[in-house]
Amino acid sequence: MRNYKLIIAYDGSRYKGWQRLSGDDRTLQSKIEEAISKTVRYKVSIDGAGRTDAGVHARGQVANVTISKKVSEEEWKNEINERLPSDIQIVKVELVKKQFHSRLSAKRKCYSYTIDTREKPHVFSRKYTLHYPKKLEVDKMKSAARLLNGTNDFTAFCDKKDDKNHIRTIYDIEIKEKNGLITIYYYGSGFLNHMVRIMTGTLLEIGRGEKDAADIKHILKEKKRANAGYTVPAMGLCLEKVYYE
Amino acid sequence: MRNYKLIIAYDGSRYKGWQRLSGDDRTLQSKIEEAISKTVRYKVSIDGAGRTDAGVHARGQVANVTISKKVSEEEWKNEINERLPSDIQIVKVELVKKQFHSRLSAKRKCYSYTIDTREKPHVFSRKYTLHYPKKLEVDKMKSAARLLNGTNDFTAFCDKKDDKNHIRTIYDIEIKEKNGLITIYYYGSGFLNHMVRIMTGTLLEIGRGEKDAADIKHILKEKKRANAGYTVPAMGLCLEKVYYE
Repeated sequence: MRNYKLIIAYDGSRYKGWQRLSGDDRTLQSKIEEAISKTVRYKVSIDGAGRTDAGVHARGQVANVTISKKVSEEEWKNEINERLPSDIQIVKVELVKKQFHSRLSAKRKCYSYTIDTREKPHVFSRKYTLHYPKKLEVDKMKSAARLLNGTNDFTAFCDKKDDKNHIRTIYDIEIKEKNGLITIYYYGSGFLNHMVRIMTGTLLEIGRGEKDAADIKHILKEKKRANAGYTVPAMGLCLEKVYYE
Repeated sequence: MRNYKLIIAYDGSRYKGWQRLSGDDRTLQSKIEEAISKTVRYKVSIDGAGRTDAGVHARGQVANVTISKKVSEEEWKNEINERLPSDIQIVKVELVKKQFHSRLSAKRKCYSYTIDTREKPHVFSRKYTLHYPKKLEVDKMKSAARLLNGTNDFTAFCDKKDDKNHIRTIYDIEIKEKNGLITIYYYGSGFLNHMVRIMTGTLLEIGRGEKDAADIKHILKEKKRANAGYTVPAMGLCLEKVYYE
């Protein structure tokens, strides 16, 4: 048996998210499993590093799959891509050690969230941004982002509480601004359900002056979802990269 | 009467080109005229700097429109944008002199053509590139591009011969390569029908070794359409910018 790592990009607009759903094949996992199964001629299952929600995009999702024989990475990548719709793409295939697991071996991940603050969203990126035509004080958002760094209990930044442990580490939050587009890059050990979207909603409220940057400390400490900002829509979110050792 | 300059971006995928067609409103000109007419409450007509073909995109198309009253540029821009579909956007509105004409006053234009040479086109740019999964010798394309510079008769690079004069000046052709995407920027005094697409088709054939870079001299001199390369599809083409004095 050989274990392969797949790096995957997708436009999540028309999918119900990463995770396979019984009786509904409009998920990324099922589309990719189906394409791979056709190339090897038996049913395979894959595991993704991040279970992206409906409408979330990816430039660097990672999955791994175990198959019975050794294949040429480049050729197999092309064979799978030919069987995938144009909004899903295998960017890279790489033979890895047996013990490699896309999710369990992941050390850190980077997600981005993009906000288009122009009166009308740009025509070429309109499906991949949140349209938010308001003035934002980016300096305040940057101060708040610094307070989110570090190892903390992120219960206040989580919608579904299925994880036992709400402690996560944020290594860095970078905010870039260009021509009215604001992109926030989140680097962390892992993220809870809706965590990136709630952190972004909170930073937006701070950028609008509805909350103070210093409120972050209080929100983290109190661990109440209601204290944090709203959950911004999926379309601006993108899984950029998964880091391994 | 006041004359306004409009800078316009559009995703041309679902349109039949810039120019108004009688009995068919799926043109950019008619969509924009309709939106502007609604804001001023009488019929207006606009003139575009470049008559982009069906499926061609723009980041910096320019049009001008004369209306009876003075308006606030920013507010009017937003009013027009609210009446336009999400794939057309007025980027800027600017009050200009009476004698300004988007096409006749234009000094030079920049068009880009983007080629995705990866086995599968990237999911986020797939609608704006030509998918051409072949190895290209970019250095040869650059040598050929240098021979297209200058003032020449471009009859060989033109599909419909409705212009009286086929002499145009190319100021520069820049070729940029990044992650398997090749973008060719053409800066010229103006372009004949399909000229950018035929120059690109010719450069592709040179990049594939089907033609030599030095053939450009011969193609220009002979003025025969058959000597030049094929007309590449519209989807990779974008009107980037129109320059005035």
